[in-house]
Amino acid sequence: MSNDVDRVARTIERLDRLADLGRLTSEEGTTRPGLSAAEQRACELVGAWMEEEGLVVSWDGAGNLFGRLPGSDGSTAEIWTGSHLDTVPNGGRFDGALGVIVGLEAVSALRGRGHGPTLVVTVFRYEEGWRFGGGCFGSRAITGDLRPDELDTVDAQGVSVRDALKALGFEGPTAAGSLPGCVIEVHVEQGPVLEARNVPHAVVTVIAGIGGFTATFSGASGHAGTLPLSHRRDAFLAAADFALDLRRTALSISDAVATIGDVRIPGGAQNVVPGLTAVSVDVRAPTSEGVHRLADAVQRLAREAARRNGCSAEVETRWLTEPVAMNDRVRAALHRAAGELAVEAIDLPSGAGHDAGIFAAHGVPTGMLFVRSLNGGVSHRPDELTDPTDVGTAIAVLTGTLAHLSGAESDEHSKNSVSPGVGP
Amino acid sequence: MSNDVDRVARTIERLDRLADLGRLTSEEGTTRPGLSAAEQRACELVGAWMEEEGLVVSWDGAGNLFGRLPGSDGSTAEIWTGSHLDTVPNGGRFDGALGVIVGLEAVSALRGRGHGPTLVVTVFRYEEGWRFGGGCFGSRAITGDLRPDELDTVDAQGVSVRDALKALGFEGPTAAGSLPGCVIEVHVEQGPVLEARNVPHAVVTVIAGIGGFTATFSGASGHAGTLPLSHRRDAFLAAADFALDLRRTALSISDAVATIGDVRIPGGAQNVVPGLTAVSVDVRAPTSEGVHRLADAVQRLAREAARRNGCSAEVETRWLTEPVAMNDRVRAALHRAAGELAVEAIDLPSGAGHDAGIFAAHGVPTGMLFVRSLNGGVSHRPDELTDPTDVGTAIAVLTGTLAHLSGAESDEHSKNSVSPGVGP
Repeated sequence: MSNDVDRVARTIERLDRLADLGRLTSEEGTTRPGLSAAEQRACELVGAWMEEEGLVVSWDGAGNLFGRLPGSDGSTAEIWTGSHLDTVPNGGRFDGALGVIVGLEAVSALRGRGHGPTLVVTVFRYEEGWRFGGGCFGSRAITGDLRPDELDTVDAQGVSVRDALKALGFEGPTAAGSLPGCVIEVHVEQGPVLEARNVPHAVVTVIAGIGGFTATFSGASGHAGTLPLSHRRDAFLAAADFALDLRRTALSISDAVATIGDVRIPGGAQNVVPGLTAVSVDVRAPTSEGVHRLADAVQRLAREAARRNGCSAEVETRWLTEPVAMNDRVRAALHRAAGELAVEAIDLPSGAGHDAGIFAAHGVPTGMLFVRSLNGGVSHRPDELTDPTDVGTAIAVLTGTLAHLSGAESDEHSKNSVSPGVGP
Repeated sequence: MSNDVDRVARTIERLDRLADLGRLTSEEGTTRPGLSAAEQRACELVGAWMEEEGLVVSWDGAGNLFGRLPGSDGSTAEIWTGSHLDTVPNGGRFDGALGVIVGLEAVSALRGRGHGPTLVVTVFRYEEGWRFGGGCFGSRAITGDLRPDELDTVDAQGVSVRDALKALGFEGPTAAGSLPGCVIEVHVEQGPVLEARNVPHAVVTVIAGIGGFTATFSGASGHAGTLPLSHRRDAFLAAADFALDLRRTALSISDAVATIGDVRIPGGAQNVVPGLTAVSVDVRAPTSEGVHRLADAVQRLAREAARRNGCSAEVETRWLTEPVAMNDRVRAALHRAAGELAVEAIDLPSGAGHDAGIFAAHGVPTGMLFVRSLNGGVSHRPDELTDPTDVGTAIAVLTGTLAHLSGAESDEHSKNSVSPGVGP
């Protein structure tokens, strides 16, 4: 298949077929937990499509799937492109799967065009992180970043990672092997910026540093009718005060975000003044200075808001990761390919974590191409949406990028069918 | 028994015995749900103590318990004194039970002193309201205030009020009979004011008007990493903004309180911007103008906070009650009795609802005597605490009050043993 229109139609059809794996009724979204039978079926279906394209299929002990198109140069510095096939509960059809299928089409398009390094379509297992905690499991298995006890962590049903792998026929991660020479991940933006700016693509500059915290405010509970306001030490009001302060600070840092996504008031009731309130705190920034300023602000603002409300605060840091820059050469190749196709692509930081970030943190030259999300950029929902036109330009830009990086010949037909009349 | 010291010791001992009914281990508090077997056992124990005092014991179809000391005047305008015996989950030993046992001692002390109207010690069933919703069930059964469908409401186990009554051998409430001529309820303050002012008692002026609301803020959920702050419509931040505003308004109204005791973020998670947040709102004020100003503020401030945060707000009014004034003559009798005993008693509004308020709203001359709560006024907790000395003065003040209202002879011995050397 070399016609780009056909490639787009086939990609959409394949995304639809994948979306049916792990969907109970046609009204709802897809639920494919990492390391579940549904994710496995999705991987096996993609494996079959890889074989149809003549790729050499293999699996590793962590369940990661590889489809290789051997290159001519005999180098071990392979070029990998792919993403993940697990979803959040009731998720959409593009998050993860798009990067896998677009990667498959791009590698397919380069068959017979004389590339040097081996091209590999990759599926990294259990990226989303909600089943066992953690996330980016497959990519971290490859880079050797799994924690010693990570295979023993269990899901809500008490099934361990180790047992989930065994049930699918995998022996578990082995010692980290050689890393790829390059990783390129195509992914939906999962945000509203590209839609708002009317641009189909972004080349990711950096994956944001992320801080995760639990802030617990302690005051004194009491009867909502008999405890005068002047005597109160209301833990929820301390948390509310903190939340608004944290937003003010995040707004002062470029491209930073801060989110309180979960609030717990143990024993909370209509007629009880909250004595305890715990909130989750998520902060992200594209620079190391920004994420550390935010992390410091979480500690300081929580203490100050607590004190103003007669309470105390404890902040537990659950994780704190540095921003990871994408590789300049790979970014340049993505921009060059887009430019040759007259496809607009801006630079954007990624606020979400991705498998690509795991490899980039290990020094692997890594790049990411974002594809516009419609519907206001909704994500992790059944109504997440990406336009077929943008899917088509994603395939073309990735194909061009892989061609440049692997030394494959250019394909005038392919370019022209996407952007008629526009030469290199 | 006529010695006041003995009456205090017996009261404390009885409160201890009642506290054991509905307590699983000695480390925890008492759980006696309304219309449960545990509350029934407590009522039967009190019924036995009533009989020991020569009172005529009877029950009504709603499970309310009455112990009558017939008067000499043949009037149907009885004087009732009592409270409730149900508790909140893991509650203390004084809330409710104190008013019943103090009432029993006061009526016992008036035996043989020639009172006119019949004196009645009363136990009103299921006051606390957490098992089936509602609350003040027994007193509302007497005044005819039960809703038509109220017997069909069920608890968390699916047991209806009707079936709970039947299991205890009660046929259910009958048509409202004649109301008493006077109701006096002794109750712990459940707040910190008396302790802070170093005063043992308060005569309640008014039971606050109470507004109960659910405020639901709707914005848009999104990915905590990819949704820029400028694009957010964060429902939790709207709720936080509202909470702080509502406190500012409540502080501007005399003796008013406002409480957000429960917060729900459906689907809330660390990495998801809240698209929906529902909060419970409880407002109380001792004046009608105050409670209506607060109720209006809840609506207005919720809308304004929602708008400032790009969200919308819906406020459901779950209940809104007017303040209920206590009767001037009964209040004067309470103050006179306290003054004769040289026991300090200030005026205070009650922020909590009580059975007394049900009768007062029906025009029954009603009064309440608050007894100091220690430990900062903690309430609805195992560590709620009232000093035996204050229990003693409560018995004495109630005895004197009932004597004045019923025309019983004064008892010099009784007064002198509480406040030696202080004459009438």
